[in-house]
Amino acid sequence: MIEALRFNGHTLSLLDQRQLPHHEVWNTYTSAESVAAAIRDMVVRGAPAIGLAAAYGMALEAARGGDLVQAHQVLLQSRPTAVHLRWALDQLAAIPPETWGTAAVAVHREDAALHRVMGDIGANLLAKLPRRPLQLLTHCNTGALATGGWGTALGVVRSLHALGVPVHVWVDETRPWLQGARLTAWELFREQIPCTLLADGAAASLFAAGKVDAVVVGADRIAKNGDTANKTGTLSVAVIAAAYRVPFYVVAPVATFDAACPDGSHIPIEHRPAAEVRGWRDQMWAPDVPAYNPAFDVTPFSLIAGWITEAGVLQPPFGGKR
Amino acid sequence: MIEALRFNGHTLSLLDQRQLPHHEVWNTYTSAESVAAAIRDMVVRGAPAIGLAAAYGMALEAARGGDLVQAHQVLLQSRPTAVHLRWALDQLAAIPPETWGTAAVAVHREDAALHRVMGDIGANLLAKLPRRPLQLLTHCNTGALATGGWGTALGVVRSLHALGVPVHVWVDETRPWLQGARLTAWELFREQIPCTLLADGAAASLFAAGKVDAVVVGADRIAKNGDTANKTGTLSVAVIAAAYRVPFYVVAPVATFDAACPDGSHIPIEHRPAAEVRGWRDQMWAPDVPAYNPAFDVTPFSLIAGWITEAGVLQPPFGGKR
Repeated sequence: MIEALRFNGHTLSLLDQRQLPHHEVWNTYTSAESVAAAIRDMVVRGAPAIGLAAAYGMALEAARGGDLVQAHQVLLQSRPTAVHLRWALDQLAAIPPETWGTAAVAVHREDAALHRVMGDIGANLLAKLPRRPLQLLTHCNTGALATGGWGTALGVVRSLHALGVPVHVWVDETRPWLQGARLTAWELFREQIPCTLLADGAAASLFAAGKVDAVVVGADRIAKNGDTANKTGTLSVAVIAAAYRVPFYVVAPVATFDAACPDGSHIPIEHRPAAEVRGWRDQMWAPDVPAYNPAFDVTPFSLIAGWITEAGVLQPPFGGKR
Repeated sequence: MIEALRFNGHTLSLLDQRQLPHHEVWNTYTSAESVAAAIRDMVVRGAPAIGLAAAYGMALEAARGGDLVQAHQVLLQSRPTAVHLRWALDQLAAIPPETWGTAAVAVHREDAALHRVMGDIGANLLAKLPRRPLQLLTHCNTGALATGGWGTALGVVRSLHALGVPVHVWVDETRPWLQGARLTAWELFREQIPCTLLADGAAASLFAAGKVDAVVVGADRIAKNGDTANKTGTLSVAVIAAAYRVPFYVVAPVATFDAACPDGSHIPIEHRPAAEVRGWRDQMWAPDVPAYNPAFDVTPFSLIAGWITEAGVLQPPFGGKR
């Protein structure tokens, strides 16, 4: 089974996702500050997974008798767009610090279980589409690596596979961080689920040729009206899917809904360094020009066919779990 | 001045575009076969530039007394989508082989001159849009490197700059071959024309935010009905531009129109190796999964506001120059 996080009560271990698919390296952490740095540097990423990492970070800080107000602040600011981080921290704030380790483990287990439920709900919905193998397209990584286990959009794929529905996944490489090429392709390869990798710009010709039955993506934050923030490039896929009348589904746990956020214009968008666009890792292939590098974009609710959650397939307005 | 090809009567020199922007290396060629290999391997690319390279390749083969039928075949097959290659070879076939060198040089000069005319026509059209700096988005490389000089879509940008119209260019990086990041950004950097690089998937959020006034792209082949083949990812931009009501222009010399091709479904699309999508150069970042790697896609005529040519801004049906 693929895991992103392991906690033993004293240390948090994170699979270093920057080194996948070539190297499976586990880094260990014992403080909130070091976990926040791991989130910022994308050792761990994916909205549900960073929520769990933050909860474990608080538990570590409580165990070592650190400054919990400071720990809460530094974790909350580590990445601004995903709402899970705030949600996980809010959950802990309501209970005594000495119970945080146990609570974080419980949230982690609950998370994996609810993702399985959500995946099955999505699989039952999509299995109604007639083609076999079912042709799904996804963007970014929303699998076991991005969550406490199973996954959101990729969890639907896992559930389809587990239910015996033949499925083939078109995987957007997802520049600049290549979550699709490195992480989604790796998860599908390991699970022996058929997939084909493509450059993000190549997706449109697949839709035009009728080779996509549905799109499934995850979410980092969903506003009350249904506007959905997700990895940069998601809006592009949504606009193209709408143009070719292919249903576009968001798959996300109820914790992703932010009832305090009326619409997408209120979602803070993280902008990341230009170097991520000018090349890959240490290899720069572009000259020293400015780069536009938002980590997320916002897909308006009107382009989304349904929000697949552990509570069913929902439609806005959303109340949120608060 | 940026050049892609130099011919001295005995050898053809090509600026090795695989090594840009870091290294400016000129390779020399003395046979049609070696020029065809250079086209296949993308030492030289861009529809007008490969047409010129093929013409020079034939001239080299005639000069060395080689098999001209064989030379014609191997060049024609070097890349299937762009029509310029066939057009250039057809032009030579009508005149004696001993005049090919002179003819190719004349076509090259004429090409650079007509691209300047075309650029000025496009600049005068786009200068009517009110914002300053004018915000243009482009995909792939269509500059001096892709042509005999000046450029097609990037030629319009050069003309705007030359006419003193403030312009800023959003440059799609253009995965998998990164023509935008490596070549367009390099040309604009050298010419000191303001530009910002972005991952292909990030373009949609620029359109949604109203930050693009018009799109300019080149073309590899234009069917009689206006359907236009261009670098993979162009269709994506066209669909998004249409959704946000931003005008999308194709900039291409009349030689790009293929009167024998009724619509886009008749344009052959080259598919390139999976390794180009799995990584960059020798660095593979994806696991060994299949990849979908069409070099081009076809934008339907309905998404295109106008075809900017050296003969004016045209609308289909097109007769072609044959």
